[in-house]
Amino acid sequence: MTQEITFIQREQLKAKPDPASLGFGKYFTDYMFVMDYHTDNGWHNARIVPYGPLTLDPSSMVFHYGQAIFEGMKAYKTPDGEVQLFRPDKNMKRLNDSCDRLCIPQIDGEFLLKAIKQLVTVEKDWVPEGAGQSLYIRPFIYASEAGLGVHPAHQYTLLVIMSPSGAYYGDQLNPVNIYVEEHYVRAVLGGVGHVKTSGNYAASLKAQEKAEANGYAQILWLDAKENKYVEEVGSMNIFFKINGEVVTPKLNGSILPGVTRDSVIQILKHWGEPVREERISIEEVFAAYERGELEEVFGAGTAAVISPVGELTWNGKTIVINDRKIGQTSQRLYDGITGIQLGKLEDPFNWTVKVSAVEV
Amino acid sequence: MTQEITFIQREQLKAKPDPASLGFGKYFTDYMFVMDYHTDNGWHNARIVPYGPLTLDPSSMVFHYGQAIFEGMKAYKTPDGEVQLFRPDKNMKRLNDSCDRLCIPQIDGEFLLKAIKQLVTVEKDWVPEGAGQSLYIRPFIYASEAGLGVHPAHQYTLLVIMSPSGAYYGDQLNPVNIYVEEHYVRAVLGGVGHVKTSGNYAASLKAQEKAEANGYAQILWLDAKENKYVEEVGSMNIFFKINGEVVTPKLNGSILPGVTRDSVIQILKHWGEPVREERISIEEVFAAYERGELEEVFGAGTAAVISPVGELTWNGKTIVINDRKIGQTSQRLYDGITGIQLGKLEDPFNWTVKVSAVEV
Repeated sequence: MTQEITFIQREQLKAKPDPASLGFGKYFTDYMFVMDYHTDNGWHNARIVPYGPLTLDPSSMVFHYGQAIFEGMKAYKTPDGEVQLFRPDKNMKRLNDSCDRLCIPQIDGEFLLKAIKQLVTVEKDWVPEGAGQSLYIRPFIYASEAGLGVHPAHQYTLLVIMSPSGAYYGDQLNPVNIYVEEHYVRAVLGGVGHVKTSGNYAASLKAQEKAEANGYAQILWLDAKENKYVEEVGSMNIFFKINGEVVTPKLNGSILPGVTRDSVIQILKHWGEPVREERISIEEVFAAYERGELEEVFGAGTAAVISPVGELTWNGKTIVINDRKIGQTSQRLYDGITGIQLGKLEDPFNWTVKVSAVEV
Repeated sequence: MTQEITFIQREQLKAKPDPASLGFGKYFTDYMFVMDYHTDNGWHNARIVPYGPLTLDPSSMVFHYGQAIFEGMKAYKTPDGEVQLFRPDKNMKRLNDSCDRLCIPQIDGEFLLKAIKQLVTVEKDWVPEGAGQSLYIRPFIYASEAGLGVHPAHQYTLLVIMSPSGAYYGDQLNPVNIYVEEHYVRAVLGGVGHVKTSGNYAASLKAQEKAEANGYAQILWLDAKENKYVEEVGSMNIFFKINGEVVTPKLNGSILPGVTRDSVIQILKHWGEPVREERISIEEVFAAYERGELEEVFGAGTAAVISPVGELTWNGKTIVINDRKIGQTSQRLYDGITGIQLGKLEDPFNWTVKVSAVEV
């Protein structure tokens, strides 16, 4: 798959949006990367083309049978004006894990990363520089074959689109209120919860809507078998600091293995802070609160990086965490991870990858 | 929502496909029905237009978050040349149940049914007349809003496309081999298994692919919590005839409530045949076989109508059902249901709905 990447220039560049009102995933850059797949000739026709509409037959399988996966990653501008990615190899790996589970042909991760670097290089003026801002990168693949038979498609389209974005929950670290969902579930062992496929998000909307209607920002999902063990929060993994130790649910086949989750674990170990991955029940979390040992709760994900939790409501009972203030560990992790992402702190893990060296 | 339906005529009609090679969902008729939704003005712009490609922004939510649902129904040509639908009210009801679970705005089922009748009337020459053939009707709705925030979309498109189709498994009732899946699962209580959303089908492909590679036509899904109780087969509900009694898994919140499933139950009751809906374990099915009491196994669904099962493989053990022959009850149900659908038998249930009376 070491193919050439065609570049089709657009006649006129878009006006850039006001940096103060970026929001998340609302504006898109001038170009996108596209590549096609057909069982007859594999992935082919790699190209960077003007961002614009897609044309699909109404019977295209993505509309009917949801064979669609995606990744989420970001490009950051460093203080010296360079642009860099954060652990993009993890996204390429997970994209292929998603492909495997959804019967989508594998991608050459190195080639796609090269394509992403080229695209980001072309669009380097779109990488915003404000606090908490970055260029959000969304690779995705969908089944483009026309026809209503239920089977893995023979034809796919891969795209990478990019959106200059602000912080997911606004520009400040603001502790959020979270509702522990007991009726709806997100995923179950043997299903698709451990990969980034579109159906997981569709299935989560109903509970999310209910939570928001009741004043909560996010849902905490419990396991589907016993409605007992903590899995993850809306679009993030979840961490609890209990009696000086950080604990997060162990990857169990239904939890998404987040890149930020892994980074939190590694950075805590690097700092010599105790951190454990294990099965943890919601009862244990509430019991720790009762003992006065629940010091912090926070989510971790690409979009929000670190998101402190101020309140947790389960089974009619609400507990207030750390007096609704940002915890010391949450803040230190946010500063540490974003510091590395933005090139403001040393990167002892070799997590960042410069894109500016790539020729177009 | 009592709106007008605009009709845009195409300049030239397509050539009809060879009736002998229809297959399933491969050819599409000349026209499609389309309707748009926006939170600002509800469902609007109902129109019958030439079948043709859709244009979507690459950030359209359907590609990323899978907010998409569908229905499957058929139009049949009767011996006197009339065209009729089978229990379309059930499809309209289930479409709205799917809307509800996926946070998609409700549809006026009566209006949509009227639109489908108009579309079928326009396309009445596309309703095939061969044995086991019908005009397959596929209503579907997807989130068309552009943007990457995860929330229920504010903008949707509803389409109805139609495909002249042969019998799903060929023109004869052929007993199929089925593999009882123990690793992958289809759905779990609290999830979306009871509605027709695209993600359910994407999630099923991996197990289906594995089963086909091993020579099986379909998968029998077990429950996700205990991997013990029978749920459904690939694209059908499942029935067992044990010691003269027909039994099918009780609807439990993760099984799709099939229209054909309901029709089988009602018609058996009408005939005075014993039929029960109850939780049934795969052990019980195999134990019934050991006792010599497992007389028939068959699937029931819109696409295949009735599909006899010839072999069932679970946990390394294969049982042959009714000597791989079509069972008496399977055949009688197939003849009874298709007889009503095709207008060849009396319809004591008022299940069929003529479309020919509709003016366009």
